Formats: sequence, C-alpha cells, structure tokens
Amino acid sequence: MRHLLHALAVAAFALTLPAHADPAKATPTPKELLAKSKSAEWRTPDPQNLLYMQLPQGRVLIELAPDFAPLHAANIRLLAHEHYYDGLAIVRVQDNFVTQWDDPAGDEEHVDTSKLRPLGSAATTLAPEYTRAWDPKLPWTALPDGDVYAPQVGFSEGFPAARNPADGQAWLAHCYGMVGVGRDIDPRSGNGSALYAVIGQAPRALDRNIALVGRVLQGMQYLSGIPRGTGPLGFYEKPEQRIVIQSVRLGSDLPTAQRAKIEVLRTDSATFAALVEAKRQRRDDFYTVPAGRLDLCGISAPVREVAAAEPAH
Amino acid sequence: MRHLLHALAVAAFALTLPAHADPAKATPTPKELLAKSKSAEWRTPDPQNLLYMQLPQGRVLIELAPDFAPLHAANIRLLAHEHYYDGLAIVRVQDNFVTQWDDPAGDEEHVDTSKLRPLGSAATTLAPEYTRAWDPKLPWTALPDGDVYAPQVGFSEGFPAARNPADGQAWLAHCYGMVGVGRDIDPRSGNGSALYAVIGQAPRALDRNIALVGRVLQGMQYLSGIPRGTGPLGFYEKPEQRIVIQSVRLGSDLPTAQRAKIEVLRTDSATFAALVEAKRQRRDDFYTVPAGRLDLCGISAPVREVAAAEPAH
Repeated sequence: MRHLLHALAVAAFALTLPAHADPAKATPTPKELLAKSKSAEWRTPDPQNLLYMQLPQGRVLIELAPDFAPLHAANIRLLAHEHYYDGLAIVRVQDNFVTQWDDPAGDEEHVDTSKLRPLGSAATTLAPEYTRAWDPKLPWTALPDGDVYAPQVGFSEGFPAARNPADGQAWLAHCYGMVGVGRDIDPRSGNGSALYAVIGQAPRALDRNIALVGRVLQGMQYLSGIPRGTGPLGFYEKPEQRIVIQSVRLGSDLPTAQRAKIEVLRTDSATFAALVEAKRQRRDDFYTVPAGRLDLCGISAPVREVAAAEPAH
Repeated sequence: MRHLLHALAVAAFALTLPAHADPAKATPTPKELLAKSKSAEWRTPDPQNLLYMQLPQGRVLIELAPDFAPLHAANIRLLAHEHYYDGLAIVRVQDNFVTQWDDPAGDEEHVDTSKLRPLGSAATTLAPEYTRAWDPKLPWTALPDGDVYAPQVGFSEGFPAARNPADGQAWLAHCYGMVGVGRDIDPRSGNGSALYAVIGQAPRALDRNIALVGRVLQGMQYLSGIPRGTGPLGFYEKPEQRIVIQSVRLGSDLPTAQRAKIEVLRTDSATFAALVEAKRQRRDDFYTVPAGRLDLCGISAPVREVAAAEPAH
C-alpha cells in the first residue's frame, strides 16, 4: 500500500539526517499511548450532555458544553426532549466550512412562518453566549505552541478553547467537528433549532461571533462525507437533496441499554499530555522532520467504545 | 434563512460594543473587492500545469507547482500524457485528513506487482522534493500574523507556502485543497502515480515530510463530499466503493476549445492584499468582533471562470 503515512521521509536538502529513524528514538504512537492509559484518565460523558442524532447513514453523537453555553445547552436539551428535531434535515453543506441542520421551512426564499415547526417549551431567543468569564474552577490544559488568533489556547473539559488574560474571557474554538448555533443577524436569534458542525479548516474568525455549544464525538463522517450544496452558502437547491434527521434524543431520555458505551479521554490527563508531545515531536519511519509544534485544532480528545459491564452472576 | 453568516453578532460580556455595526465601517466583501479587480491582477494558469481529472461526479482541476516540485510535476505530466491515470480510482478517504487516488492493485493486502499498471515513460523513483532553497526570483507575499509551524508564511505563485530564513529553505504548506504525492516508507518511492488532496484541518506536520505538488482549483467538492473509507487509514474496504477516475488529461494535451476558461488571482496583487485585510478585519452586520488575524490556510487564491473571447468577424 502507498500510505503517505507510517513511512520514512528524508527531507530534500537535509540529507545529513539519518536515512532511517532510530526505532529506539521513534515517538510512541497514539495507539500505544492509549493502550497504556489508566481507567481514571477517561470520563463517561453525562447522558444529559449527549445528543444522539440519527441520520439514514448512521448515528451522530454530540457532547454539549454547558459550562460554555449553558442557556443554549439547556434549550437544545428541551428541544431534543420534546422531539423537536425529528424530521428536520441537513439543509446546507458548504465545502471547507460547515454542515447545517435546520427546519427546512425556514430555508425557503420566502419563509412562511406559519409553516415553521413550533419550538414547544424551548425559548425562541437567548442571550448570546459567545464568550464567558474565565472561572479558575474550570479545568485548563494549555497547549505550548501559541496560536494565530488568541493569546492562549488549550482544552477545557475536552473542548478546544481560547483565553484572553487581558479581559478574563474564554471561549470555545471553531475546530473541526465543533458544533455551533445558527442564527440570524440579531445576536439573540440563536436558540438551538438550527445547528452546524465545522467540516473544514477551522474558521476561527467565527470565534466570539457566534455560540459554540458542543463537539461531535462519533459519526462526524456522516456530516462531512456528503454532497456539498450548490446554492449560495452551500444550501441544497432541491428539497430532495436534504438529508432527513430521523430523530435526535438526549442520552438521559434513552433507556440505559440504548445509551452509547463510550468514554472520552480527559484532556487534563497525563496520557493526553503524552499524546500532545508525541504529536509535536512525531518521529518514526515516515516522519523524520518533526514539526516540533502543534496547533489547537491539530488534536482532539480521543473517544473510545467500552465493553458493557458483565452482569454479576 | 438562518445563516450563521452575514448576520450581526454582539459578543456576550462585551456589550459596550455597538449593537449594530456601522455600515460605513463595514469591511468590503470578497465579491466587492473582486468586482473592482483589474485584469492584470489575474493570471491564466499555464496549460502545462493544469490537470483535468474527470470523475463520475464532475471535473477536478489541479494546478501543478513546478517551482516547488519540478521532478514530480514533470513525472505527473508524463503520466497524464500517456493516460496512466485513466481507470485508476479514489481508494482512500480519511475523514479530516486526505482523499487519495491510486492504482487499486497497489492497495490490496498482498500486492501482486504483476497487476500494477506500468508507469510507461515515467520514472518509478524520484528524489524527494519536500523543501527547496529559496530563490529571490520567486514571488512572495507574506502574511502578517505569524504561524504555529513555520517562521514565515505566505503565498508564492498562488500556493500557500512557508519559509525558514535560518536555513534558506522554503516549502509548500498542507492547506485544504493542496495536492501531494503518496509514497511508501522510502522517500524516493513517490512518483506521482498516487496522489492525495487535503480535505480537513491542515495537517501541517506533513510539511517537509512529503512532496506537495499542486492545488485543486475547481471541483474540490468531488474529493471532499464523498463517503469516508471504513478500513484502516480510511481505505475503502470493498472494491465497489472506490470511485473510478474516468480520465486525467494535461491541459496542454487538450484542444484549445476543451480547455477550462479560468483565471487565478495573483497572490502578489493589490486585490489579494485587500482580501487578506478584509478577512483579518472583517466587520459587518454579522461579524462585530473582527479576528484581527488570519492564518495561512484561512485564505486561498480566488479562481474565476472567464467568458470565451468572441471570435472576430
């Protein structure tokens, strides 16, 4: 197989480098590091923070970030609890930007508001939650290599985030797989009925201009590996191109047996720190010129399936 | 429509900002800037540098970068000229990483080399071209906001690139849509018969470890908006999942009438500089907190279709 990965590289014009990396000096692989991780380094996401979105192609699992967008997370929980999303659709896929799902009736050229699905108990407007005051009680794992957009970047509770010590604010960052709240011009118009996921190069200019509310843990390929819309902003031009959402359920509304058996590596764990270092200094048969650096969106918290506990007997 | 774009944002906890951006202070849109551009700011890619890859879904147009990878560009031209790629396939789509096309016979678990398509006049091994010595004759448009991975970043001849003044080397950068040469462990094993395009967050750690050879100018959505492979590294597990390449032609081998009528904005033009500034300082009804910054892979050289010249009569 021609991999482009796990193979040796000798940089042109740098032929004084060894022709083969010394296996003794090879950085450990993610697989090796994860295999050595301890149980306590993994967390089980709170079922109240897990959205199960069923598409025809498969299931998308999203973890909400209530510490960064509490009002939006609560509203999305209400919408899911009342089955608001069932039958809505992916209406927009803009290449190298976002996939968005929404009430299709809201995406017609002339919106007939009487056709919009009512939001039930959920609020129709919310205060914007684009940044928050930093709370020292929040976990924070800094990345060491700086960032083009923010004074400090790192991870908090598994989410890529940024901080500005000058004003004490923190915010989630628009990395691949992050989920945000679509809105109109009015900054109070976002309510969680329209959501999007980042499917390309991190559009970091959106940071602090719109509310991020979570991250895709599984099933990202069902949001990214689908045809792009050919209308303006990547909207599908024909209703039949839209991908219908069969259901969205909150984990805590599902019977225990139907809940995903997954864990997320704690981003304040020693193993995550080792993953960061292995990625920064990656050197193996293929990578002989380590980047020595890692950008915020160049790594994400690993997710693993766990075997169901054996019943006692 | 709920856009998440072109709408107003007021950052939470920053309510001293004006509730509505002053239209007089709104940054110009890319559309406005391009409409004012001058003809001389656009260039017509050399037909010898254009690959036309026909997939069942549509045409992918790739511009080669011979100033950064001359041996690889020449070999790929030969392969295209001799129709080597016709009937090969997209064999690998790894989410948030790359789409790769190749001789499917090379991706079986046990490669039967007698089944591999011969490379014809093209070389089977090439010296690696991962970096090059900087030549002051090359155009260079620096970006002002730094980079996590390289001392200097910017554009040269439309391609995102990096430079290291300390050793005088320069290299193309793995941004979205960049095309590279798949290879095995041996750094001389890349020859252009296997190519890949970046379809996710820029995997910058590949920079200087593998040869980049060009950029997708059109049709990127046919490489990104397709199902991910479920095998290791995103390889398709079943032959019928592969997407067959109908043909790859070099522009200079096509009759003039069949050549794409396209132009690429010069990255050393005043209009490109204005696009960079408008993106850095973006402020409009939606974006009220300008990033003030722009990363290398956050912008690319615009491509436009041009009307065919009217025949004189």
